[in-house]
Amino acid sequence: MKSTIWFLLIFISLLYLMIPVHTQASKDSSVNKKIQEDLSSRKPKKLSCISVHTSGRWASCPAGMAVTGCACGNGCGSWDVQNGITCHCQCAGMDWTAARCCRLV
Amino acid sequence: MKSTIWFLLIFISLLYLMIPVHTQASKDSSVNKKIQEDLSSRKPKKLSCISVHTSGRWASCPAGMAVTGCACGNGCGSWDVQNGITCHCQCAGMDWTAARCCRLV
Amino acid sequence: MKSTIWFLLIFISLLYLMIPVHTQASKDSSVNKKIQEDLSSRKPKKLSCISVHTSGRWASCPAGMAVTGCACGNGCGSWDVQNGITCHCQCAGMDWTAARCCRLV
Repeated sequence: MKSTIWFLLIFISLLYLMIPVHTQASKDSSVNKKIQEDLSSRKPKKLSCISVHTSGRWASCPAGMAVTGCACGNGCGSWDVQNGITCHCQCAGMDWTAARCCRLV
Repeated sequence: MKSTIWFLLIFISLLYLMIPVHTQASKDSSVNKKIQEDLSSRKPKKLSCISVHTSGRWASCPAGMAVTGCACGNGCGSWDVQNGITCHCQCAGMDWTAARCCRLV
Repeated sequence: MKSTIWFLLIFISLLYLMIPVHTQASKDSSVNKKIQEDLSSRKPKKLSCISVHTSGRWASCPAGMAVTGCACGNGCGSWDVQNGITCHCQCAGMDWTAARCCRLV
Protein backbone atom coordinates (compact mmCIF):
# COMPACT_ATOMS: atom_id res chain seq x y z
CA MET A 1 0.00 0.00 0.00
CA LYS A 2 2.69 2.49 0.97
CA SER A 3 4.78 1.79 -2.13
CA THR A 4 1.73 2.17 -4.34
CA ILE A 5 1.04 5.63 -2.97
CA TRP A 6 4.67 6.62 -3.39
CA PHE A 7 4.59 5.43 -6.95
CA LEU A 8 1.47 7.42 -7.68
CA LEU A 9 2.86 10.58 -6.13
CA ILE A 10 6.05 10.37 -8.15
CA PHE A 11 4.17 9.51 -11.32
CA ILE A 12 1.85 12.49 -10.98
CA SER A 13 4.79 14.72 -10.15
CA LEU A 14 6.57 13.75 -13.35
CA LEU A 15 3.37 14.14 -15.33
CA TYR A 16 2.95 17.74 -14.27
CA LEU A 17 6.59 18.55 -14.75
CA MET A 18 6.08 17.70 -18.41
CA ILE A 19 2.99 19.82 -18.92
CA PRO A 20 4.59 23.25 -18.42
CA VAL A 21 7.42 22.40 -20.83
CA HIS A 22 4.97 21.49 -23.52
CA THR A 23 2.82 24.52 -22.79
CA GLN A 24 5.83 26.83 -22.86
CA ALA A 25 6.97 25.59 -26.26
CA SER A 26 3.60 25.87 -27.94
CA LYS A 27 3.08 29.22 -26.22
CA ASP A 28 6.32 30.62 -27.63
CA SER A 29 5.27 29.56 -31.08
CA SER A 30 1.83 31.08 -30.59
CA VAL A 31 3.26 34.38 -29.32
CA ASN A 32 5.68 34.61 -32.22
CA LYS A 33 2.90 33.94 -34.69
CA LYS A 34 0.67 36.53 -33.06
CA ILE A 35 3.41 39.17 -33.12
CA GLN A 36 4.20 38.46 -36.76
CA GLU A 37 0.55 38.67 -37.74
CA ASP A 38 0.01 41.94 -35.92
CA LEU A 39 3.13 43.48 -37.36
CA SER A 40 2.28 42.32 -40.86
CA SER A 41 -1.25 43.61 -40.73
CA ARG A 42 -0.13 46.99 -39.43
CA LYS A 43 3.18 47.04 -41.13
CA PRO A 44 3.85 50.38 -42.58
CA LYS A 45 3.91 51.42 -45.10
CA LYS A 46 4.62 52.95 -48.34
CA LEU A 47 4.55 56.47 -49.56
CA SER A 48 1.63 57.28 -51.80
CA CYS A 49 1.31 60.55 -53.70
CA ILE A 50 -1.29 62.26 -55.85
CA SER A 51 -1.50 65.56 -57.69
CA VAL A 52 -4.20 68.14 -57.04
CA HIS A 53 -4.58 70.38 -60.07
CA THR A 54 -6.62 73.58 -60.02
CA SER A 55 -7.03 76.70 -62.06
CA GLY A 56 -5.69 79.82 -60.41
CA ARG A 57 -2.69 80.23 -58.16
CA TRP A 58 -3.65 78.01 -55.20
CA ALA A 59 -4.04 74.27 -54.87
CA SER A 60 -4.60 72.46 -51.59
CA CYS A 61 -3.89 68.92 -50.51
CA PRO A 62 -6.67 66.85 -48.91
CA ALA A 63 -6.68 66.50 -45.15
CA GLY A 64 -4.11 63.97 -43.97
CA MET A 65 -1.74 64.56 -46.87
CA ALA A 66 1.43 66.62 -46.92
CA VAL A 67 2.61 68.96 -49.67
CA THR A 68 5.92 67.71 -51.03
CA GLY A 69 6.16 70.03 -54.03
CA CYS A 70 4.22 72.32 -56.34
CA ALA A 71 4.01 72.98 -60.06
CA CYS A 72 2.77 76.15 -61.75
CA GLY A 73 1.48 77.24 -65.13
CA ASN A 74 3.41 79.42 -67.59
CA GLY A 75 6.66 77.64 -66.70
CA CYS A 76 6.78 79.25 -63.28
CA GLY A 77 8.91 77.57 -60.61
CA SER A 78 8.41 80.09 -57.81
CA TRP A 79 6.03 78.78 -55.20
CA ASP A 80 5.51 78.54 -51.50
CA VAL A 81 3.34 76.48 -49.20
CA GLN A 82 0.71 78.29 -47.18
CA ASN A 83 -0.89 76.91 -44.01
CA GLY A 84 1.00 73.69 -44.51
CA ILE A 85 -1.37 72.35 -47.14
CA THR A 86 -1.73 74.89 -49.95
CA CYS A 87 0.56 75.46 -52.90
CA HIS A 88 0.77 79.08 -53.95
CA CYS A 89 2.32 79.94 -57.31
CA GLN A 90 3.90 83.38 -57.21
CA CYS A 91 4.37 84.43 -60.84
CA ALA A 92 2.04 86.90 -62.54
CA GLY A 93 -0.85 85.56 -64.56
CA MET A 94 -0.97 82.05 -63.11
CA ASP A 95 -3.50 79.95 -64.99
CA TRP A 96 -3.01 76.73 -63.05
CA THR A 97 -1.40 75.36 -59.92
CA ALA A 98 -0.75 71.76 -58.94
CA ALA A 99 0.07 70.43 -55.49
CA ARG A 100 1.93 67.17 -55.08
CA CYS A 101 0.39 65.53 -52.01
CA CYS A 102 1.76 62.49 -50.20
CA ARG A 103 0.93 60.32 -47.24
CA LEU A 104 1.73 56.91 -45.81
CA VAL A 105 -0.61 54.09 -46.71
CA MET B 1 -8.30 5.20 4.11
CA LYS B 2 -7.27 3.93 0.68
CA SER B 3 -10.29 5.46 -1.01
CA THR B 4 -9.66 8.79 0.67
CA ILE B 5 -6.13 8.91 -0.70
CA TRP B 6 -7.31 7.95 -4.16
CA PHE B 7 -9.90 10.67 -4.01
CA LEU B 8 -7.33 13.24 -2.98
CA LEU B 9 -4.93 12.23 -5.74
CA ILE B 10 -7.59 12.50 -8.40
CA PHE B 11 -8.88 15.77 -7.00
CA ILE B 12 -5.43 17.34 -7.02
CA SER B 13 -4.80 16.00 -10.51
CA LEU B 14 -7.92 17.67 -11.82
CA LEU B 15 -7.07 20.84 -9.97
CA TYR B 16 -3.73 21.15 -11.69
CA LEU B 17 -5.14 20.25 -15.04
CA MET B 18 -7.36 23.31 -14.74
CA ILE B 19 -4.62 25.74 -13.78
CA PRO B 20 -2.69 25.71 -17.07
CA VAL B 21 -5.86 26.24 -19.07
CA HIS B 22 -6.78 29.24 -17.04
CA THR B 23 -3.23 30.58 -17.17
CA GLN B 24 -3.09 30.07 -20.93
CA ALA B 25 -6.28 32.04 -21.53
CA SER B 26 -5.33 35.01 -19.40
CA LYS B 27 -1.82 34.90 -20.86
CA ASP B 28 -3.15 35.10 -24.40
CA SER B 29 -5.20 38.09 -23.45
CA SER B 30 -2.23 39.71 -21.75
CA VAL B 31 0.08 39.07 -24.72
CA ASN B 32 -2.46 40.50 -27.15
CA LYS B 33 -2.89 43.58 -25.01
CA LYS B 34 0.86 44.05 -24.72
CA ILE B 35 1.37 43.72 -28.48
CA GLN B 36 -1.43 46.18 -29.19
CA GLU B 37 -0.04 48.70 -26.73
CA ASP B 38 3.47 48.46 -28.11
CA LEU B 39 2.28 48.76 -31.68
CA SER B 40 0.05 51.70 -30.86
CA SER B 41 2.72 53.58 -28.99
CA ARG B 42 5.23 53.06 -31.77
CA LYS B 43 2.78 53.10 -34.57
CA PRO B 44 4.03 55.15 -37.41
CA LYS B 45 3.38 57.57 -38.54
CA LYS B 46 2.56 60.41 -40.75
CA LEU B 47 4.49 62.45 -43.20
CA SER B 48 5.34 65.92 -41.99
CA CYS B 49 6.87 68.59 -44.20
CA ILE B 50 8.28 72.08 -43.77
CA SER B 51 9.82 74.66 -46.07
CA VAL B 52 13.27 76.10 -45.56
CA HIS B 53 13.56 79.44 -47.31
CA THR B 54 16.86 81.24 -47.79
CA SER B 55 18.27 84.04 -49.88
CA GLY B 56 20.71 82.91 -52.55
CA ARG B 57 20.70 79.75 -54.60
CA TRP B 58 21.05 77.08 -51.91
CA ALA B 59 18.71 75.92 -49.18
CA SER B 60 19.33 72.91 -46.96
CA CYS B 61 16.99 70.69 -45.02
CA PRO B 62 17.65 70.03 -41.32
CA ALA B 63 19.29 66.77 -40.35
CA GLY B 64 16.84 63.88 -40.43
CA MET B 65 14.67 65.40 -43.14
CA ALA B 66 14.60 64.56 -46.83
CA VAL B 67 14.33 66.99 -49.73
CA THR B 68 11.17 66.24 -51.68
CA GLY B 69 11.20 69.32 -53.92
CA CYS B 70 12.61 72.80 -54.38
CA ALA B 71 11.31 76.22 -55.38
CA CYS B 72 13.33 79.11 -56.78
CA GLY B 73 13.03 82.84 -57.20
CA ASN B 74 12.42 84.61 -60.49
CA GLY B 75 10.05 81.87 -61.61
CA CYS B 76 12.88 79.42 -62.06
CA GLY B 77 11.99 75.72 -62.06
CA SER B 78 15.45 74.31 -62.74
CA TRP B 79 16.96 72.83 -59.63
CA ASP B 80 18.92 69.90 -58.35
CA VAL B 81 19.62 68.38 -54.97
CA GLN B 82 23.20 68.39 -53.76
CA ASN B 83 24.57 66.07 -51.06
CA GLY B 84 21.09 64.71 -50.53
CA ILE B 85 19.96 67.65 -48.42
CA THR B 86 20.52 70.88 -50.32
CA CYS B 87 18.34 72.49 -52.98
CA HIS B 88 20.33 74.29 -55.64
CA CYS B 89 18.53 76.65 -58.01
CA GLN B 90 20.29 76.79 -61.36
CA CYS B 91 18.99 79.93 -63.07
CA ALA B 92 21.02 83.13 -63.24
CA GLY B 93 20.41 85.81 -60.62
CA MET B 94 18.68 83.64 -58.02
CA ASP B 95 17.44 85.79 -55.15
CA TRP B 96 15.86 83.03 -53.10
CA THR B 97 15.69 79.26 -52.82
CA ALA B 98 13.29 77.12 -50.83
CA ALA B 99 13.68 73.46 -49.91
CA ARG B 100 10.65 71.34 -49.14
CA CYS B 101 11.76 69.01 -46.34
CA CYS B 102 9.83 66.00 -45.08
CA ARG B 103 10.16 63.28 -42.51
CA LEU B 104 8.06 60.75 -40.64
CA VAL B 105 6.69 61.80 -37.27
CA MET C 1 1.49 6.94 7.79
CA LYS C 2 -1.59 9.06 7.26
CA SER C 3 0.17 12.25 8.31
CA THR C 4 3.09 11.49 6.00
CA ILE C 5 0.79 11.17 3.01
CA TRP C 6 -0.99 14.37 3.93
CA PHE C 7 2.32 16.14 4.23
CA LEU C 8 3.41 14.90 0.81
CA LEU C 9 0.17 15.92 -0.83
CA ILE C 10 0.36 19.42 0.58
CA PHE C 11 4.04 19.71 -0.27
CA ILE C 12 3.49 18.71 -3.88
CA SER C 13 0.50 21.02 -4.10
CA LEU C 14 2.59 23.96 -2.99
CA LEU C 15 5.38 22.96 -5.33
CA TYR C 16 3.11 23.10 -8.35
CA LEU C 17 1.52 26.29 -7.25
CA MET C 18 4.95 27.89 -7.43
CA ILE C 19 5.82 26.65 -10.90
CA PRO C 20 3.18 28.61 -12.83
CA VAL C 21 4.11 31.81 -11.04
CA HIS C 22 7.71 31.44 -11.97
CA THR C 23 6.84 30.47 -15.52
CA GLN C 24 4.45 33.40 -15.85
CA ALA C 25 7.06 35.94 -14.77
CA SER C 26 9.83 34.69 -17.03
CA LYS C 27 7.28 34.34 -19.83
CA ASP C 28 6.21 37.95 -19.50
CA SER C 29 9.80 39.05 -19.72
CA SER C 30 10.41 36.82 -22.71
CA VAL C 31 7.29 38.08 -24.51
CA ASN C 32 8.24 41.70 -23.90
CA LYS C 33 11.74 41.09 -25.19
CA LYS C 34 10.43 39.33 -28.27
CA ILE C 35 7.99 42.13 -29.03
CA GLN C 36 10.68 44.76 -28.60
CA GLU C 37 13.09 42.88 -30.86
CA ASP C 38 10.50 42.41 -33.58
CA LEU C 39 9.43 46.02 -33.43
CA SER C 40 12.99 47.26 -33.48
CA SER C 41 14.01 45.12 -36.39
CA ARG C 42 10.98 46.16 -38.41
CA LYS C 43 10.71 49.59 -37.01
CA PRO C 44 9.99 52.06 -39.69
CA LYS C 45 11.45 54.09 -40.92
CA LYS C 46 12.74 57.10 -42.51
CA LEU C 47 12.03 58.85 -45.74
CA SER C 48 14.73 58.42 -48.34
CA CYS C 49 14.80 60.33 -51.62
CA ILE C 50 16.84 60.30 -54.79
CA SER C 51 16.80 62.25 -58.04
CA VAL C 52 16.42 60.61 -61.43
CA HIS C 53 17.82 62.89 -64.11
CA THR C 54 17.27 62.30 -67.81
CA SER C 55 17.55 64.17 -71.05
CA GLY C 56 14.23 64.99 -72.67
CA ARG C 57 10.92 65.83 -71.06
CA TRP C 58 10.22 62.64 -69.10
CA ALA C 59 11.88 61.12 -66.07
CA SER C 60 10.53 58.09 -64.20
CA CYS C 61 11.03 56.92 -60.64
CA PRO C 62 12.11 53.33 -60.00
CA ALA C 63 9.45 50.83 -58.97
CA GLY C 64 8.52 51.22 -55.31
CA MET C 65 9.29 54.92 -55.18
CA ALA C 66 6.86 57.82 -55.32
CA VAL C 67 7.27 61.07 -57.24
CA THR C 68 7.29 63.96 -54.77
CA GLY C 69 8.35 66.70 -57.21
CA CYS C 70 9.94 67.40 -60.56
CA ALA C 71 12.51 69.82 -61.98
CA CYS C 72 12.92 70.88 -65.58
CA GLY C 73 15.54 72.41 -67.81
CA ASN C 74 15.44 75.96 -69.14
CA GLY C 75 14.06 77.23 -65.84
CA CYS C 76 10.70 75.62 -66.48
CA GLY C 77 8.46 74.98 -63.45
CA SER C 78 5.45 73.56 -65.27
CA TRP C 79 5.23 69.82 -64.85
CA ASP C 80 2.82 67.03 -64.21
CA VAL C 81 3.10 63.42 -63.10
CA GLN C 82 2.00 60.76 -65.56
CA ASN C 83 1.02 57.21 -64.58
CA GLY C 84 1.98 58.00 -60.99
CA ILE C 85 5.71 57.57 -61.60
CA THR C 86 6.81 59.81 -64.45
CA CYS C 87 7.66 63.50 -64.37
CA HIS C 88 6.65 65.33 -67.51
CA CYS C 89 8.04 68.80 -68.13
CA GLN C 90 5.63 70.86 -70.19
CA CYS C 91 7.63 73.80 -71.58
CA ALA C 92 8.87 73.88 -75.14
CA GLY C 93 12.39 72.71 -75.88
CA MET C 94 12.97 70.72 -72.71
CA ASP C 95 16.57 69.49 -72.57
CA TRP C 96 16.38 67.71 -69.25
CA THR C 97 13.89 66.49 -66.66
CA ALA C 98 14.51 65.32 -63.12
CA ALA C 99 12.15 63.34 -60.91
CA ARG C 100 12.46 63.50 -57.14
CA CYS C 101 11.67 59.99 -55.95
CA CYS C 102 11.07 58.97 -52.34
CA ARG C 103 10.26 55.88 -50.33
CA LEU C 104 10.40 54.57 -46.81
CA VAL C 105 13.50 52.66 -45.81
